[in-house]
Amino acid sequence: MVIKTAKEINKMIKEVLDTLSEKQVEEFMQNLIHSRNIFVSGAGRSGLVGKAFAMRLMHLGFYVYVVGETITPPVKPGDLLIAISGSGKTNATLTTVKTAKKLKTTVVAITSFKNSPIAKLADVIVVIRGRRLKGKEPDYISGQLTGAHEPLTPLGGLFELSTMIFLDSVITKLMRLYEEGERDLRKRHANI
Amino acid sequence: MVIKTAKEINKMIKEVLDTLSEKQVEEFMQNLIHSRNIFVSGAGRSGLVGKAFAMRLMHLGFYVYVVGETITPPVKPGDLLIAISGSGKTNATLTTVKTAKKLKTTVVAITSFKNSPIAKLADVIVVIRGRRLKGKEPDYISGQLTGAHEPLTPLGGLFELSTMIFLDSVITKLMRLYEEGERDLRKRHANI
Amino acid sequence: MVIKTAKEINKMIKEVLDTLSEKQVEEFMQNLIHSRNIFVSGAGRSGLVGKAFAMRLMHLGFYVYVVGETITPPVKPGDLLIAISGSGKTNATLTTVKTAKKLKTTVVAITSFKNSPIAKLADVIVVIRGRRLKGKEPDYISGQLTGAHEPLTPLGGLFELSTMIFLDSVITKLMRLYEEGERDLRKRHANI
Amino acid sequence: MVIKTAKEINKMIKEVLDTLSEKQVEEFMQNLIHSRNIFVSGAGRSGLVGKAFAMRLMHLGFYVYVVGETITPPVKPGDLLIAISGSGKTNATLTTVKTAKKLKTTVVAITSFKNSPIAKLADVIVVIRGRRLKGKEPDYISGQLTGAHEPLTPLGGLFELSTMIFLDSVITKLMRLYEEGERDLRKRHANI
Repeated sequence: MVIKTAKEINKMIKEVLDTLSEKQVEEFMQNLIHSRNIFVSGAGRSGLVGKAFAMRLMHLGFYVYVVGETITPPVKPGDLLIAISGSGKTNATLTTVKTAKKLKTTVVAITSFKNSPIAKLADVIVVIRGRRLKGKEPDYISGQLTGAHEPLTPLGGLFELSTMIFLDSVITKLMRLYEEGERDLRKRHANI
Repeated sequence: MVIKTAKEINKMIKEVLDTLSEKQVEEFMQNLIHSRNIFVSGAGRSGLVGKAFAMRLMHLGFYVYVVGETITPPVKPGDLLIAISGSGKTNATLTTVKTAKKLKTTVVAITSFKNSPIAKLADVIVVIRGRRLKGKEPDYISGQLTGAHEPLTPLGGLFELSTMIFLDSVITKLMRLYEEGERDLRKRHANI
Repeated sequence: MVIKTAKEINKMIKEVLDTLSEKQVEEFMQNLIHSRNIFVSGAGRSGLVGKAFAMRLMHLGFYVYVVGETITPPVKPGDLLIAISGSGKTNATLTTVKTAKKLKTTVVAITSFKNSPIAKLADVIVVIRGRRLKGKEPDYISGQLTGAHEPLTPLGGLFELSTMIFLDSVITKLMRLYEEGERDLRKRHANI
Repeated sequence: MVIKTAKEINKMIKEVLDTLSEKQVEEFMQNLIHSRNIFVSGAGRSGLVGKAFAMRLMHLGFYVYVVGETITPPVKPGDLLIAISGSGKTNATLTTVKTAKKLKTTVVAITSFKNSPIAKLADVIVVIRGRRLKGKEPDYISGQLTGAHEPLTPLGGLFELSTMIFLDSVITKLMRLYEEGERDLRKRHANI
């Protein structure tokens, strides 16, 4: 039964991917390519998906930071914040987005809800279906302490799984772009 | 092109899920259900996938710990270590598995290679295809410092993505099991 | 000059320790000993000091968790939250304290300011001088993104250094208490 | 008794600080100032002390990374690795040092033992007394799983506490150096 469920989840992910907007994805790509430093923000499982993306961006030679880790520098205009929140209203991520906007940093929201508080503040939105808004404790830490959390799978994890696959395909695209051009982005580092 | 690639990855994941062994999965489930404490171990992106699984197990009421986090207690006989390593030879994970075996802890290896060092030490294996063995720096930290890392996507991330979907379907199965029985595993905690 | 400064800091810590209240410390100890699960919360360097304390409590056999780490379970009445915040108004820590109070968890605040928001909500306070209130961005993440942070040393780190030494002496006391009694608190775990 | 113990620990730290070598400290300072990127490595409580130092270096405008965190880039010649290990033989830290030396990175060891494996590989040593060598499980993760760990306080934590005070006084010195010169090191970032 577990394998059958895994295949059902994978099928649901396909349906989510079918609803992705080419235009939104293209805007996201342009911002990724033309930003100075990239910051990734997300709570709980969205945070883990963000870290998995950050690792790959770093391998490609990008200057990338995870909000909340030890050595994250200040954001500046020209930087890009990628905020990952299924509900679009996770407290810590919302605070991060508000701060980034004050500092004139471009914000990309990856969320299931285009009318959520985080999406409304963002410059670019990538809508990835899967998260239901209701029953969500918006503060991740409060949710941890109260035991409130996203509904469990299959539907509860659909947003994170789809986002992880989407972001891995972004990495594939970036890789191809740089193979044709600069070959090893890492060299950028060496020349500073 | 990004969306097309995402769908291709989704398709490759399906092919990976098709190769899962019912028998291996069932053994894994039995061990999950009958273990006292559960420990999750993995480096890099495998570690992130492990943490995403640990969060859900915790939500279900399991006693679960992430090896290397601040407050991880010692393992004991009757505990279960879940070691996630695509190559099956990641240094830190291998050391963890060796230590766990010395302490008579049951080990489940989730890996692409059934003949890898980690798989050979494990009591239970779940083979999830996707990782190629070659070109891998077996020590994660050394890999980080030298800039050696898994090949990037699409193929590089296939193991982690498939594993994350597989583990989410394990959560779905556990949820159903407990719904029929104990309803709220969390009560276990409250009664200790 | 570095060594001279180190000795000056050491001397300032002595002055901070001179102002500790026996009564406050005793109340803290009683709560530590009689609580079920212990949760530690703090942002930035205060969070690191909290983790260093949590590691030792775990070594002594306590059930201890770090708020915000992967597998932190919900708090319950009878649990203890230790909130470390020099200014007593760090946003994330304040939110944690408010949530814990709603759930009828006992809260100990370790802070420089007995009239700060966190101290006012706490059941027990341990005042450790050293932090100046002004110029502090109360939200740690916002502070990280804006580049606002505590004033640097010598005075900026006095609270954390004094707190770390204080908490290590708490561990020493607990160790002696349990040596006379249960010898190995860890056995508690084994008997559940 | 707790407060009395805290004062005793603080006094022991003074004795440790008395044994610091001006020459070693000066060499460390010169390497800090003249290095390109700075990497900090340490396991357990030594790792936490390293992170506390890294946070401050980052506030001062240094390019600093914590080995093992999500986005740590590769090391290069001209970079500096600061390895913190009381025993001087912690496995993960030793592996990190070996890798860094292969890549021609300068290594500073902060340790209690000048003849330990890590100290012997290092280019610069800062000896900070306090850690006893015996009874130490050299692999941090194995130690976590077996429940083996440093002896608890008062003596067990002396190395970390003294190191944290020492590193805070290094920050004070750097601050003064840059106040006289560049005023805001952070500008370096902005000009790249």
